[in-house]
Amino acid sequence: MPILVMKFGGTSVATLDRIRRAAKRVGREVAGGYDVIVIVSAMSGETNKLVGYVEETSPLFDAREYDAVVSSGENVTAGLMALTLQEMDVSARSWQGWQVPLKTNSAHASARIEEIPTGNILAKFGEGMKVAVVAGFQGIGDDGRITTLGRGGSDTTAVAFAASFKAERCDIFTDVDGVYTTDPRICGKARKLDKIAFEEMLELASLGAKVLQTRSVELAMRYNVKLRVLSSFEEHNDEAGTLVCAEEDNMESKAVAGVAYSKDEAKVTLISVADRPGVSAAIFGPLADAGVNVDMIVQNISEEGRTDMTFSCPTNQVKRAEKAVNDAKARGEINFHGLVADTEVCKVSIVGIGMRSHAGVAARMFQALRDENINIKVITTSEIKVSVLIDRKYMELAVQALHDAFELEKG
Amino acid sequence: MPILVMKFGGTSVATLDRIRRAAKRVGREVAGGYDVIVIVSAMSGETNKLVGYVEETSPLFDAREYDAVVSSGENVTAGLMALTLQEMDVSARSWQGWQVPLKTNSAHASARIEEIPTGNILAKFGEGMKVAVVAGFQGIGDDGRITTLGRGGSDTTAVAFAASFKAERCDIFTDVDGVYTTDPRICGKARKLDKIAFEEMLELASLGAKVLQTRSVELAMRYNVKLRVLSSFEEHNDEAGTLVCAEEDNMESKAVAGVAYSKDEAKVTLISVADRPGVSAAIFGPLADAGVNVDMIVQNISEEGRTDMTFSCPTNQVKRAEKAVNDAKARGEINFHGLVADTEVCKVSIVGIGMRSHAGVAARMFQALRDENINIKVITTSEIKVSVLIDRKYMELAVQALHDAFELEKG
Repeated sequence: MPILVMKFGGTSVATLDRIRRAAKRVGREVAGGYDVIVIVSAMSGETNKLVGYVEETSPLFDAREYDAVVSSGENVTAGLMALTLQEMDVSARSWQGWQVPLKTNSAHASARIEEIPTGNILAKFGEGMKVAVVAGFQGIGDDGRITTLGRGGSDTTAVAFAASFKAERCDIFTDVDGVYTTDPRICGKARKLDKIAFEEMLELASLGAKVLQTRSVELAMRYNVKLRVLSSFEEHNDEAGTLVCAEEDNMESKAVAGVAYSKDEAKVTLISVADRPGVSAAIFGPLADAGVNVDMIVQNISEEGRTDMTFSCPTNQVKRAEKAVNDAKARGEINFHGLVADTEVCKVSIVGIGMRSHAGVAARMFQALRDENINIKVITTSEIKVSVLIDRKYMELAVQALHDAFELEKG
Repeated sequence: MPILVMKFGGTSVATLDRIRRAAKRVGREVAGGYDVIVIVSAMSGETNKLVGYVEETSPLFDAREYDAVVSSGENVTAGLMALTLQEMDVSARSWQGWQVPLKTNSAHASARIEEIPTGNILAKFGEGMKVAVVAGFQGIGDDGRITTLGRGGSDTTAVAFAASFKAERCDIFTDVDGVYTTDPRICGKARKLDKIAFEEMLELASLGAKVLQTRSVELAMRYNVKLRVLSSFEEHNDEAGTLVCAEEDNMESKAVAGVAYSKDEAKVTLISVADRPGVSAAIFGPLADAGVNVDMIVQNISEEGRTDMTFSCPTNQVKRAEKAVNDAKARGEINFHGLVADTEVCKVSIVGIGMRSHAGVAARMFQALRDENINIKVITTSEIKVSVLIDRKYMELAVQALHDAFELEKG
């Protein structure tokens, strides 16, 4: 039998009614001839509640105990989903991560999947079981203790199962009906995409689109897992949602596929840095050691041996960044006259594999922003994206202007 | 190091504050030189919530999935307790049932403990860990799936650990401060016992006293585990609570140790049963097959080859009992003219190992009830208890009258 992986996120299993609704979808795929692996998240709100307990108990918690606590939400949903399927006369049973076993490294709270042996579940499929319900987000480490994969890890679980079991497709059921050209909440013209290339989805996910966890897209790309994102709240046919797939399957060939944004950005400028060989390493080494995720970097033209160095990082890492560079200054490793942090900025990005073949995409972006009198503070580019840092108050305007400029409302 | 087992029930770990309070007690025992095994229940209300989910999803649920779901509450508390101890600089880690592994048979939802290997936990104690926090109520079956021990199973987990690890004592922390001569809520003169014999505790637990799960007392008796029941809400010294121990250690030698009651009783009478050899087997065989827990049985004097047969069972099994005997009648296995079920009854019992040596205890009980004009419907006795079935409306009166008659308020 062909195998299908279906993943239901927290809002899709938030109540017993929603679990029933999800189970009905699973039942239809079983009736259609599939053996199905269902990956479930915790009922929405549960994981946050458990994380809250842990953080209140122990601010600098032992990640092994964190994992033991927060993984329990998925176990509940997995059992309830199996029971619901059984009530519908669909042969099903639940697996917890350690029972599969989904083997991970021992990086507790952000473990990476190492191996998913398929024997146990395939044997049950061989005996006539139709649905294996697996608790998402969790595994077992080399140390024999429960691990979790980090927030959103159930997407990654689903893709990893699809890869290991060579599933025909991996359907991710969520509270939106697919991947949009941009966030419909801030741009009324946003259009659902029927298909998107892995590389584009990866950039959109990294750049702030929350529909899929970045690692799950990476994994799907590496193992060429056909990934479909669709709403669990709408009835739909097999063509619904958005298919995330390899570039050759992707029919759309526009320069830009989507516009992403992220509010969670801050700009930090070190003023009048002594400009000499190795100064970048002297600054960004200590920042990396302090766990600051530096994103964009720009260095002004050097005048009289001094320059300004600007970088962006997540807003909640600004204090850590300040401490790291001030410590480095105190140790005499770097020298600068002052530090200015601006947390009232945001990042807006355009993404599209078509950029590789379309010239002038960046210029068109800058023109569109200039037409709205939006000042660009920092720019970074890659082969398939251009990101700019701008004042946060212009964020919605910028997204709308770029959506118009690249005519994304047109299919 | 000597080992102590400490078990905290649901109300004792109902909030993070209460977990902290419990952890402080554990810390004191560690400071006193013990290695401690802590057994925790789910935060109060959690197990009921999960059982509710399961029953709503699937009234005739697959017990294996039930176990996977309802065991998750204890996992949360175990992790939080370990984190709380770590915050107090007490070296601790959590174990889930399958990690110990606590091996049970595969009678899901009411599994029996088969073995608790001590190697893993003793090795950690050897490395300097001071507290092993174990999720109560759960284990792993021969089938590799999670099992649970039935409601109240955390008491049994605690006693089983105490037996396996040869613990010096097993302290059960609960929301009452010990075992009383009777329920203080219905008899103001009820007195806390300092000690009680295993056999007495076993009868009291079976007869309705809710302070300890019956199986845990059985197990403590078999392995001679010193069991102490005490309140987690009061500060107390080493002499607090009630010690449940072997008879020879028990200083009190009164005829009656306590009065128990159970509201959850119904009386079922089969009227005019054809009285012939084998009729009891023909009636109680089908009842046993239907899972009806028949408690007391009384058969009237036979007249003209017919008799009335009366038995008691839990109130919620009356319908099942009716179906079982009516089915047997339809199959021609038994014959009776009618069935009368009375759910307005209750069972009141006196318990004491002193009955073995004190004559006339039953007579004194019947006299006390007669003095209050309480009619006795059914009587059963054992070596150390006398139970009567009476109208439920007299329950409190009967308990108070018996408490007075045997002068239980006097220490």
